Amino acid sequence: MAGSNHFFTSTTMLYLVFLYVHLLLFLRFSGVAVSQSIIQSLPGFVGALPFELETGYVSVDDSNDVQLFYYFVKSENNPTEDPLIVWFTGGPGCSVLTALMFENGPLYFKHAKYNGSLPTLMLNPNSWTKISNILYVDAPVGTGFSYSRSLEGSFTSDTKSAKQSYIFIRKWLMHHPEFFSNPLYICGDSYAGMVVPIIVQDISDGIEIGHKPSINLKGYLLGNPATDRHAELNSQIHFFHHMGILSDELLESAKKHCKGEYVKVDPSNVQCIKDLQAVSQCTAKLNPSHILEPSCGQVWTPKCKKIIRDRNLLEKNLCSNLISLPPIPLLKCRNYGHMLSYYWANNDGVRKALNVRKGTVQEWTRCNLDGINYLKNVKTSTGYHLSISKRHYRSLIYSGDHDANVPFFNTQTWIRSLNYSIIDEWRPWFVDGQIGGYTRTYANQMTFATVKGGGHTAPEYRPNECFNMFKRWLSYEPL
Amino acid sequence: MAGSNHFFTSTTMLYLVFLYVHLLLFLRFSGVAVSQSIIQSLPGFVGALPFELETGYVSVDDSNDVQLFYYFVKSENNPTEDPLIVWFTGGPGCSVLTALMFENGPLYFKHAKYNGSLPTLMLNPNSWTKISNILYVDAPVGTGFSYSRSLEGSFTSDTKSAKQSYIFIRKWLMHHPEFFSNPLYICGDSYAGMVVPIIVQDISDGIEIGHKPSINLKGYLLGNPATDRHAELNSQIHFFHHMGILSDELLESAKKHCKGEYVKVDPSNVQCIKDLQAVSQCTAKLNPSHILEPSCGQVWTPKCKKIIRDRNLLEKNLCSNLISLPPIPLLKCRNYGHMLSYYWANNDGVRKALNVRKGTVQEWTRCNLDGINYLKNVKTSTGYHLSISKRHYRSLIYSGDHDANVPFFNTQTWIRSLNYSIIDEWRPWFVDGQIGGYTRTYANQMTFATVKGGGHTAPEYRPNECFNMFKRWLSYEPL
Repeated sequence: MAGSNHFFTSTTMLYLVFLYVHLLLFLRFSGVAVSQSIIQSLPGFVGALPFELETGYVSVDDSNDVQLFYYFVKSENNPTEDPLIVWFTGGPGCSVLTALMFENGPLYFKHAKYNGSLPTLMLNPNSWTKISNILYVDAPVGTGFSYSRSLEGSFTSDTKSAKQSYIFIRKWLMHHPEFFSNPLYICGDSYAGMVVPIIVQDISDGIEIGHKPSINLKGYLLGNPATDRHAELNSQIHFFHHMGILSDELLESAKKHCKGEYVKVDPSNVQCIKDLQAVSQCTAKLNPSHILEPSCGQVWTPKCKKIIRDRNLLEKNLCSNLISLPPIPLLKCRNYGHMLSYYWANNDGVRKALNVRKGTVQEWTRCNLDGINYLKNVKTSTGYHLSISKRHYRSLIYSGDHDANVPFFNTQTWIRSLNYSIIDEWRPWFVDGQIGGYTRTYANQMTFATVKGGGHTAPEYRPNECFNMFKRWLSYEPL
Repeated sequence: MAGSNHFFTSTTMLYLVFLYVHLLLFLRFSGVAVSQSIIQSLPGFVGALPFELETGYVSVDDSNDVQLFYYFVKSENNPTEDPLIVWFTGGPGCSVLTALMFENGPLYFKHAKYNGSLPTLMLNPNSWTKISNILYVDAPVGTGFSYSRSLEGSFTSDTKSAKQSYIFIRKWLMHHPEFFSNPLYICGDSYAGMVVPIIVQDISDGIEIGHKPSINLKGYLLGNPATDRHAELNSQIHFFHHMGILSDELLESAKKHCKGEYVKVDPSNVQCIKDLQAVSQCTAKLNPSHILEPSCGQVWTPKCKKIIRDRNLLEKNLCSNLISLPPIPLLKCRNYGHMLSYYWANNDGVRKALNVRKGTVQEWTRCNLDGINYLKNVKTSTGYHLSISKRHYRSLIYSGDHDANVPFFNTQTWIRSLNYSIIDEWRPWFVDGQIGGYTRTYANQMTFATVKGGGHTAPEYRPNECFNMFKRWLSYEPL
């Protein structure tokens, strides 16, 4: 018994120590640092939400009070076992509401003329939350409803944002221990292509050195990802030529005169400049996010619209990046929905329902491109891809093939540069008997797929195809 | 007075001789050889037609009783002065109803589920007949409602069809002398690209040698025109690569192994055959007429569907080219409308309204590809383009840029091969402030234009853009 007692005492002691360590960890990552609330209904949506929505803040830098806002949507299928997706939107500076309301989230704005009342919300039948838990994060700080109360806290960079996102994920998981064991994927699109691979690397490094909580990281997914902006911008001229936007002769002339460099051009190279002016004439009025869709410009915020109307010159400067933009888009334009998002997310009732902290973000902006203090300190994320996929994290990289921002064939090019062997050769993938796009699988569990007819944010343009692609990939099925 | 009398007598004589010559000409080209009727209403269309429609037959080979059927729609603007367009559809063997009901004509089928009653007709707001008189011709013989009662008469070729079309135009004009002075354009799309330039050449030759009636030929217009089928088919592999349907590696391999020849392949060239099989795997389920639209196959005729259902093996052979085709397309498919055209054009009431001669065409087929006796005896029509545009006939060649049948850049290539100097350099053209496509004008009044997002029959996919393009070109305005 003594022995037994001794054993009891020592295991009790061990258990107490274990609890104490977890308590310390919990305290370090919790308290006022994390807030969360369950949302039963949302203004604009009729009735109770038929899915579980939680919003909240996670402090990722206590000394500078940097708070990242999130929307968490539980899987409508089996939240206990379905994967946990952490989703980041690009920009940098674009609110994750863009993904939640326009791409793969459970809601979207009814496309109807704005009459001054709150925009109506509808259910998205192709929401990825039908098969996965999705944690949508407004990152970096300054994006959407994320904020810092200090100037120092407002500064971020690719690597700093990744570090803060990693802190975010750890803290959020500590407060949601029921998701410890779910397979976890870090995902996003557009500029998130620069940051997601770094977050994956940071998590992976954390796992190797035994960071708590233990994260069941399985891989990552990226749509039309920025990877090397210089290479991508340089490749646009070829994409435009492929798509019939530039003539053969102009491409040949530009290749000859600019010698493959169309971004950092020597100002004394008159012939090259002349060719690039001709290129600009052909592309200036295109919609780069989907070359076949009408170009309707960007929309401004209701606040700035008011400022412009009131001709308040002082405040006008605050909107300097907005005042030269076109007026409310035509109803037929896809970005009419973007405009609706401004009216919705800046409505007091909506903010209250989402538990947005008063006075933290004066005006929600869909893409706060010029309003954040962000240093792009990573030139290319290919090294991160190489590093993490060699650690056996699986990946899906997809490209809407009508996007000129990140042309699909430049994505093919950097993937080829990783020198992975080909496992499953280039072939079409199908949805409902129709070609959804083309795919190829590489060693190190990397899959590339195009989404035929998709734009920069492919699920916005091809929702059914992208849902099926995502579902198959999550289930380890061939696309 | 005597002199005056003498003068009167001789001018009267001259006038009588003139009338006699015209009468002879008229008799040669008329009588039972031409029939025409004015249509006030059409089954499926509610109320009287708000435009003037005439249908009829013109005999183009009396000895073999070859009768070409036509639909003539008077301009809704100013028929006396607006140009006269003669429109031919491709195939060879596709009924011109395809153009009239799906492309640039005044009517289209309401896209609604077929319930056994006659399909409903609607007015096309972008009909080219709003600004021009259009004479739609079912050519060559065997197409649509055109027919021959003799076996010999059923045989045609590119050059013979062109000759018969020329006879058609002369005879039709003789019966419609009020259109003698209207500017005349010969137009069409797809395979009409092989024949229209020959017709223009024949008319031009006729003008030079003083054929009557005198034809006020101004030029021609062609959409996604076949010009050199071998070159076009060979260029498809590059088009598919440009559009992200083939991988870079597959294109490189095929180029290396097939040495630029992907159509007439040496069967012992195993590597090339292997590459082309991989190409086929990537393209087999594409819709070649518009690579972003669903592939819904071709539709069969109601009669053949009944034959297949009844398992009448003898008759089944008559439908051999149809029985392997898919069933009624999905409502969401563009070719659902094509199916409706079968039900409409084979309805007894419709045929009666159109004054189709009983017993001449048992079953109307949208594209009678295998049912005509047609010899493709012209390899390329570039020589005709060269010859006629040097005679100062103006031309507009346009390409829907998402068509794989006749890829736009192969059209650019043969135009470049004409060695015309460039008058107006490659630039976008606009409709409602949006890019409609790109254009370039060459010497000899030749204009090339792409239709952004257009398919093989561009006005079917981009009606507003194509109407504006046509209008500007007709008015001698820059696109």
